[in-house]
Amino acid sequence: MLVHEAFSTRPADRLSCDNRRMIPAPLQNDTFLRACLGQSTNYTPVWLMRQAGRYLPEYRATRARAGSFMGLATHADYATEVTLQPLERYPLDAAILFSDILTVPDAMGLGLSFQEGEGPRFAQAVRDEAAVARLAVPDMHKLRYVFDAVASIRKALAGRVPLIGFSGSPWTLACYMVEGAGSSDYRHVKTLLYARPDLMHRVLTVNAGAVAQYLNAQIDAGAQAVMVFDSWGGVLADGAFQTFSLAYTAHVLAQLKRTGADGRVVPRIVFTKGGGPWLEAMRELPCDVLGLDWTMPLARASAIISQAHTQGAVCVFGQNDAETPAARVRPVALQGNLDPSVLFAPPQAVRAQARAVLDSFGPPQAQGQPAIGHIFNLGHGIHQLTPPEHVAHLVDEVHRYSAALRGR
Amino acid sequence: MLVHEAFSTRPADRLSCDNRRMIPAPLQNDTFLRACLGQSTNYTPVWLMRQAGRYLPEYRATRARAGSFMGLATHADYATEVTLQPLERYPLDAAILFSDILTVPDAMGLGLSFQEGEGPRFAQAVRDEAAVARLAVPDMHKLRYVFDAVASIRKALAGRVPLIGFSGSPWTLACYMVEGAGSSDYRHVKTLLYARPDLMHRVLTVNAGAVAQYLNAQIDAGAQAVMVFDSWGGVLADGAFQTFSLAYTAHVLAQLKRTGADGRVVPRIVFTKGGGPWLEAMRELPCDVLGLDWTMPLARASAIISQAHTQGAVCVFGQNDAETPAARVRPVALQGNLDPSVLFAPPQAVRAQARAVLDSFGPPQAQGQPAIGHIFNLGHGIHQLTPPEHVAHLVDEVHRYSAALRGR
Repeated sequence: MLVHEAFSTRPADRLSCDNRRMIPAPLQNDTFLRACLGQSTNYTPVWLMRQAGRYLPEYRATRARAGSFMGLATHADYATEVTLQPLERYPLDAAILFSDILTVPDAMGLGLSFQEGEGPRFAQAVRDEAAVARLAVPDMHKLRYVFDAVASIRKALAGRVPLIGFSGSPWTLACYMVEGAGSSDYRHVKTLLYARPDLMHRVLTVNAGAVAQYLNAQIDAGAQAVMVFDSWGGVLADGAFQTFSLAYTAHVLAQLKRTGADGRVVPRIVFTKGGGPWLEAMRELPCDVLGLDWTMPLARASAIISQAHTQGAVCVFGQNDAETPAARVRPVALQGNLDPSVLFAPPQAVRAQARAVLDSFGPPQAQGQPAIGHIFNLGHGIHQLTPPEHVAHLVDEVHRYSAALRGR
Repeated sequence: MLVHEAFSTRPADRLSCDNRRMIPAPLQNDTFLRACLGQSTNYTPVWLMRQAGRYLPEYRATRARAGSFMGLATHADYATEVTLQPLERYPLDAAILFSDILTVPDAMGLGLSFQEGEGPRFAQAVRDEAAVARLAVPDMHKLRYVFDAVASIRKALAGRVPLIGFSGSPWTLACYMVEGAGSSDYRHVKTLLYARPDLMHRVLTVNAGAVAQYLNAQIDAGAQAVMVFDSWGGVLADGAFQTFSLAYTAHVLAQLKRTGADGRVVPRIVFTKGGGPWLEAMRELPCDVLGLDWTMPLARASAIISQAHTQGAVCVFGQNDAETPAARVRPVALQGNLDPSVLFAPPQAVRAQARAVLDSFGPPQAQGQPAIGHIFNLGHGIHQLTPPEHVAHLVDEVHRYSAALRGR
């Protein structure tokens, strides 16, 4: 499956980039991109959230040289090195940019830092009217290190597999910005939401504008698919989710470029952890792929997104959306959803659970059904204590068994 | 709505109990019990998970006298005092036994303790074959302090509202027993589940037997409804939930007494936090009420449990279950589901969100629909920083607005 490409990357004009005149190598494996668009594939492609991470000794070695997590993320060479590490071990079908979900609020001037063993923290939490008023879409120049990393990784990949760019969703970024750190109860952000919805909407409007610019710049720099991580959408109540998370994710998607510099479609993936109860609403999102966590029965999810869209339903997300090309996009694939804890079990159990996920998705493109693509993934990032050899068994079983299901 | 009762409590014969010859006062408010059974009510009854808790200054004062959390739970006088405290402040429609979810594994000899600010901890985690082999259903005498508390609370309630007894589900207890404490990733219990499902099934079998005996003894002591908290069912993957949580909850329910010593039906409530994706499976449980967290759209949940049961469907939980009276029970009511974070917002926002939950459930007993009862609750326990006066607004609005919806 060799797909030839002939294009030069064109980062946003105002961004200087060493790789801007690079001619990318032809893409050797487009299985992931095809599955994202609901096209037939010879097997089920697989990549894993946090596939470049602490469970790999080579990652830990690079991180030690870089000095810190943000040392990795802010230097294109390091980010490139760790992004490619899992591909050296496993025949994964996509790479994902190594970066952090909080780069955008950091560029807004909130002062991101990482305390060892404590997770991310902002120097300034956004909790009152004055702090909200100060928020603005940051100058994308402040995020140039991310776009440089994208260009560098594309070059280093040399067409082996596509590169996924990503961002946190407006709501998920807001959770960190208002809480000032991770949270177990989201007390501050929910208090703001229920007590001052006007302020919450302003935060989310700024975030949506920033995330759209950020993802478009990643696409310009060479990202071949983009993913919106709505990691904390699932903590919201029914009703609040649609108003404060889904609507702003839709605003982002409506502003995204549909194609990269090469003219090839850039698939969009939206993943809301805990979003199962809202799949009927999420299927109206102008994206190609919906990510699932491990609680959602795959066959039911597939049936839900197979149902024909009612005409004009996308209008719920803004009256102008229907006129943009983005609004004509609809989810045609699912991404998920093995529980990453399965990877602690012995190899034979890992393989059995991988088969169970593939079986639960059902046979590829059953007759009389719309074709729904499937990308195999975890329902959450790989745990740092995962034995790396178990990941090899997982990737092998997904490829082997899914090809067998297709009778190849 | 005065409902007269004339019965004496009969705790299990082998348990001596000071209150065994007590003649309970007539029940003055049976709105909660009626709603549990899908019967019509003049308004929507409300109680709140963790309604007796740290957000109340009078609770903190009693706890200071008792010396510790378990000091409260293990002394009937203290347990009675704190159980009744929220009823003095708010016209709640039910009381719930003040106790801990981990009393049963503590009685199994695992050594429960509470470190200040750290939550519960077991001296001995159950992680290997030997530890699993040692597990057994504990002698219920070791839990007599719980049944004494139930009898004491019934006496003190003097028929004001019904008393709910409770237990953790077999799976939720297993999480704590295997992890040895609370967990953010459930690594140990999921590793056991996937690596040694045989051991996991043995743990759950013991737990199911213990929970059934425990709840039946609470019913004997005077509990007028029982609730199974499957607090951690929602961390399981689809498939694993049905096998390792739902099936064992069903085993518990199949063993429960259907009526109390007074001959009145004892409704069963099952609450799986994060269980929304599995409501179609949960509606086959032999219980009366399904609890919901705040992510689940109430109208859809109501539609799901309204659908007629397919004949024999309960057999999935064990071939003999269909022959027991319990197996003919089916869910006819929903309990939930305000996000407890709403209580941090100002009173007018609290009232608006309460109305939104009642509106989303829909009008009571719409024509042509089976009657589905509604019990208003939170989707999780009250946060300790909740302002007590906000709870008063919530309870008042639920009563006022739900009565208005009925045109009364």
